[in-house]
Amino acid sequence: MALRHYTLDFNLSAPADCPTTVHGLQSIFQEQEMTETVHDTEGHGYLATFIGKNGRLVILRVTAHGLLTIDLQCCEGDNIVQVENLLNTLEEKLRSLLHGNIKRVKRLPALTRGAAVDRYWPTADGRLVEYDIDRVVYDEDSAYQNIKIMHSQQFGNILILNGDVNLSESDLPYTQAIMGRGQENYAGKEVLILGGGDGGILAEAVKLKPKMITMVEIDQMVIDGCRTHMRKACGSVLDNLKGECYQVLVEDCVPVLKKYVEEGKTFDYVINDLTAVPISTAPEEDSTWEFLQLILDLSIKVLRPTGKYFTQGNSANLTETLALYEEQLGRLSCPVDFSKEVVCVPSYMELWVFYTVWKK
Amino acid sequence: MALRHYTLDFNLSAPADCPTTVHGLQSIFQEQEMTETVHDTEGHGYLATFIGKNGRLVILRVTAHGLLTIDLQCCEGDNIVQVENLLNTLEEKLRSLLHGNIKRVKRLPALTRGAAVDRYWPTADGRLVEYDIDRVVYDEDSAYQNIKIMHSQQFGNILILNGDVNLSESDLPYTQAIMGRGQENYAGKEVLILGGGDGGILAEAVKLKPKMITMVEIDQMVIDGCRTHMRKACGSVLDNLKGECYQVLVEDCVPVLKKYVEEGKTFDYVINDLTAVPISTAPEEDSTWEFLQLILDLSIKVLRPTGKYFTQGNSANLTETLALYEEQLGRLSCPVDFSKEVVCVPSYMELWVFYTVWKK
Repeated sequence: MALRHYTLDFNLSAPADCPTTVHGLQSIFQEQEMTETVHDTEGHGYLATFIGKNGRLVILRVTAHGLLTIDLQCCEGDNIVQVENLLNTLEEKLRSLLHGNIKRVKRLPALTRGAAVDRYWPTADGRLVEYDIDRVVYDEDSAYQNIKIMHSQQFGNILILNGDVNLSESDLPYTQAIMGRGQENYAGKEVLILGGGDGGILAEAVKLKPKMITMVEIDQMVIDGCRTHMRKACGSVLDNLKGECYQVLVEDCVPVLKKYVEEGKTFDYVINDLTAVPISTAPEEDSTWEFLQLILDLSIKVLRPTGKYFTQGNSANLTETLALYEEQLGRLSCPVDFSKEVVCVPSYMELWVFYTVWKK
Repeated sequence: MALRHYTLDFNLSAPADCPTTVHGLQSIFQEQEMTETVHDTEGHGYLATFIGKNGRLVILRVTAHGLLTIDLQCCEGDNIVQVENLLNTLEEKLRSLLHGNIKRVKRLPALTRGAAVDRYWPTADGRLVEYDIDRVVYDEDSAYQNIKIMHSQQFGNILILNGDVNLSESDLPYTQAIMGRGQENYAGKEVLILGGGDGGILAEAVKLKPKMITMVEIDQMVIDGCRTHMRKACGSVLDNLKGECYQVLVEDCVPVLKKYVEEGKTFDYVINDLTAVPISTAPEEDSTWEFLQLILDLSIKVLRPTGKYFTQGNSANLTETLALYEEQLGRLSCPVDFSKEVVCVPSYMELWVFYTVWKK
């Protein structure tokens, strides 16, 4: 049983006349038969809690600096109309009590806490975002990660790996960005996809008549979940691990890349679609950065001199992380140049940076 | 002075052993010298509040249904590292106390309440969204509305009218969508823009060499604010109210439209960029819908037989509102057909529907 949590905040021009304000609200709490407790804050403003029927809780704070906050918690099964009426009554009363002293009234959409369907998936830059998710389609732990596929009213199904939004069925702009924004000629080319278990890139790439696409995805369960539930992204391409112009290797990409380097096998395009913190069966390196560096170095080694390496970077707001990545690009065994582009991926709720890297 | 509000929620497989759990946390609160109050919830689970130094408040709830919630409030000026350490300590302790019984742990980014810079601008479909807004650039009340221009790290400046996100400097997709997605030939055409005070449409339209653009915006202060602070959207087009191929009338569009109808003046393109609930100096109609209907009817009357009427609709999730609008299109004095497209406008945090309407 979830908890609904309402907030209602008043910014005031001058500190409130606290006794008058508190007294003015008392009849409302009495009518609700709520039990009041006034707490000693040792001089840090007025703070009272009110407990009502059905486990309802109101917290009233008035700071010395002109902020009045109300929290109202109720159980999900409570009478929502009654609860929202209580909040309306408090808001109206406060608007009249504080009349002439109000700078801003802010009432946010209620937080739903502990619900079976979790709608809150913060952005990479740490902002609180509520999605229009209405059901869980798939939720499994593989040997490597937690795999969720959730349904959004506007975006269709969304793949969420270890809590990170990876791709929705409306995110063709992601796939286009990581394939070179329609500027590349894939016809007759050899393509290597690292990760990409949702099948989005593979599905778009096969349309472009390449010679051969090799996709190396470590997690069979991602492939299985997406084949069934992300068909607007992957179409039928994951129905078979082999097609006329593609093969899917369900393997850790690091040993595969090493083998290719040994064999001297090269590609026209390498598309790194691994998760932000890539997963490996046997990470040999100490830190995430060193591991990223290893994959990057191996990827450039299997790139033809005229080839291009595409990858997603990070949130456009994470400028320090992006700068670190760009530093890394300067430290590869083979010198490279790069360009970047900022792209709006619909389900990300933040702008995202994509990189193109090529050999100097 | 703002309040920071942290939440930490545990979903449990089975109801918690409440006395053990509560007892297990007590040493943490004692160490913080917090004063405990256990509240009587009349059988609706365990509920205790803890008041600490600097006005810190912790609320601990344990429901009978396997949900444990913690709220932690502190003042903005408090030692954030200390506060977050307290929350870390509580989380670690609870992970160990509830070991084997945890289905999900959810810790959201802290809510900042009552801050000078308000980062929370809910979507049209009522979801809680935090923006990366770091400063207020412009905040004025005109005769018609509150006009805010706020700076977002990723989107540039954002125009917010009466609390609705209207346009950011990264929202060229909005402007392209409401101009026909690059499919139209504006060269030599006559164009009427209703609203559009941010100048985004006007700036794009003048590039396309139309014969004449007339823009009718009611609010001079929107024009003034955007001319200065939304230049990535409007360029220099608002520096003068008249240009080689355009004129801006700072007027209510309803009487202007009526005059055009009387005079028999017509346009190749009518672009309705009015706010969702349009503003008028003298609304003659009772309801918003009737007022919308009036503008729509007048707009179609000034449209040439081969002309097109473009407008933004609403959030793709507000299917009922969209259906009502489409019903309206069937009730105009002149029969019309329409098409619609769903577009991702970067700063909207929700997909948006745009309409094209033409005379049958």
